[in-house]
Amino acid sequence: MSKVHNYSAGPCILPQDVFTEAAKAVTDFNGIGLSILEISHRSKDFVAVMDEAITLVKELLNVPEGYTVLFLQGGASLGFLMSAYNMMPEGGKGAYVETGTWAKKAVKEAKLLGNVEVIASSADKNFNYIPKGYTIPSDADFLHLTSNNTIFGTQMKDFPKSDIPVVCDMSSDIFSRSVNVADFDIIYAGAQKNLGPAGATLYIVKDEVLGRVKRSIPSMLDLKVHAEKDSMFNTPPVYPIYVAMLNLRYMIKEGGLEAQQKKAEERAALLYNEIDSNPLFEGTTAVEDRSNMNATFVLTDESKKDQFDEMWQAANINGLKGHRSVGGYRASMYNALPIESVQVLVDVMKKLNS
Amino acid sequence: MSKVHNYSAGPCILPQDVFTEAAKAVTDFNGIGLSILEISHRSKDFVAVMDEAITLVKELLNVPEGYTVLFLQGGASLGFLMSAYNMMPEGGKGAYVETGTWAKKAVKEAKLLGNVEVIASSADKNFNYIPKGYTIPSDADFLHLTSNNTIFGTQMKDFPKSDIPVVCDMSSDIFSRSVNVADFDIIYAGAQKNLGPAGATLYIVKDEVLGRVKRSIPSMLDLKVHAEKDSMFNTPPVYPIYVAMLNLRYMIKEGGLEAQQKKAEERAALLYNEIDSNPLFEGTTAVEDRSNMNATFVLTDESKKDQFDEMWQAANINGLKGHRSVGGYRASMYNALPIESVQVLVDVMKKLNS
Repeated sequence: MSKVHNYSAGPCILPQDVFTEAAKAVTDFNGIGLSILEISHRSKDFVAVMDEAITLVKELLNVPEGYTVLFLQGGASLGFLMSAYNMMPEGGKGAYVETGTWAKKAVKEAKLLGNVEVIASSADKNFNYIPKGYTIPSDADFLHLTSNNTIFGTQMKDFPKSDIPVVCDMSSDIFSRSVNVADFDIIYAGAQKNLGPAGATLYIVKDEVLGRVKRSIPSMLDLKVHAEKDSMFNTPPVYPIYVAMLNLRYMIKEGGLEAQQKKAEERAALLYNEIDSNPLFEGTTAVEDRSNMNATFVLTDESKKDQFDEMWQAANINGLKGHRSVGGYRASMYNALPIESVQVLVDVMKKLNS
Repeated sequence: MSKVHNYSAGPCILPQDVFTEAAKAVTDFNGIGLSILEISHRSKDFVAVMDEAITLVKELLNVPEGYTVLFLQGGASLGFLMSAYNMMPEGGKGAYVETGTWAKKAVKEAKLLGNVEVIASSADKNFNYIPKGYTIPSDADFLHLTSNNTIFGTQMKDFPKSDIPVVCDMSSDIFSRSVNVADFDIIYAGAQKNLGPAGATLYIVKDEVLGRVKRSIPSMLDLKVHAEKDSMFNTPPVYPIYVAMLNLRYMIKEGGLEAQQKKAEERAALLYNEIDSNPLFEGTTAVEDRSNMNATFVLTDESKKDQFDEMWQAANINGLKGHRSVGGYRASMYNALPIESVQVLVDVMKKLNS
């Protein structure tokens, strides 16, 4: 197996079949004699791509009636601002659960638009756990969550019961498990983990949200504007959406989110089991909050660092270095990562201890 | 020549050589065994792409010292908002020249942030000319221009002399001619005409602009934030930027903007000459303001419509239908359109009159 074992934290690995078809469309799309890069976003061929991508998101996530699916731009970073703009009335309040770097950034942008109450935080332990048992203030206009924390390697296994509308940044674990979309008013996610390449951003919005807030919203930040134009208020990121559509097709062909969840659990079990049983390694997060997407761990004996780094690089493993906020290592195991790649890493870890 | 003659208004034709290389990178980028769609934006291979794209923009447009080049997202539609945010102090004023649909949208977004004075407009004649001879108010904080109007087919051949800072949306004619960057404080442009595929947006910003306005600006709309992070404040649209870089290389190889300008003038002369000499056609814009990028024209005898439509479609011409705001036809002739494609259209027009 000469293929690189790609543990990149995002943009990240996607299925080889998707790359093969995505490459073909760059030279000749649908056999129309044109590249997908040179066609109008209003051409029937691309409108069909957009429609199919939206339909497949609804199918995969079992999106109920009364929700709109949008493909926009700007990533979660613009989503922090857009979600607050669309949920926060003038003088309103947002309740935020602070579980890491991205949640903190969401808080920062929301503060420009109204009152923000951080109702729970794991900052006291460098975000190595998911806060639980907090009270959700009934006078807040919405609750903001981050489902998975790429940098710190934690994941919300269950979402809190909330009587107020819930907004969730699911950038880094969407499509890795089933979620009950009806529990959320806005779900947003940068594409570049389990959905597609960088450049597209998914929004799943309860229709009641559209136009709910009476403040002036700039057109590009107003979900109602985008919904009314079927994600074509402005020129959409054509190619990233096309590749996402191919990947959505692939996930359905592979058995949908049940199959993806099973694979995610198998990969995570294999790696965490090695981390826990190998005396040279230890995980950095609370065991019950461990992310199935991003496993963070450190060496117990720093003198082994050079040896370990040399060994995993020699095994053709890519992207294992931890984020500077945590140090150590981070194994990002998104949907398309084969369990064989995890086995290669586990073998290296075992060999280091032999 | 079985290749389609692609007159799309944007996203639009790019060079075949660019598509060939762009397709290769989707399966194996730089021979690293990974697709460009699955690598980290912080990997050395992509950082090199971003650096080269910025360097090539500076080279092609002869960008002087004291300017920063950024590759962001959101297209001109987000640029309308971002340019106003970065130029308009609290209680400030922007002076706008209203030359069409995009300029009107820029006015709309700027009004959310301060006072907007439309100092000149061609709305009285359905935007079929470029206003001239207007006075630029010295008390405005900036002047906003649109260099080319895709829908109405007009282009600013010269930019007005201004004593106040100038912002220009150059989405649809950037890289088709030389411009004196030093005359502008902000140039912005959606990539999907002469630069690359949809999904990336170019900003060329005078460094003095960064942080000039003291108001609170959301992070993603603050050019200073993006400049400080070298366009990597958030995950950039990796593939659209890569393809833009390939196309920038190609434009330099072809002789830079002088060569592009010569080709644009030749294509425009060939087509406008036919429009003017063929009694069955007439242009819709003032002759002196005709765009070299988008030629708009109508039939003088509507009874010929079906025949003409059948003929150009049979000639493998794509994307000639005019925008609904103007009707008739629009021939978009961006950098990569071969003059042979224009000749095919001219031959069809001649044949209709024979």
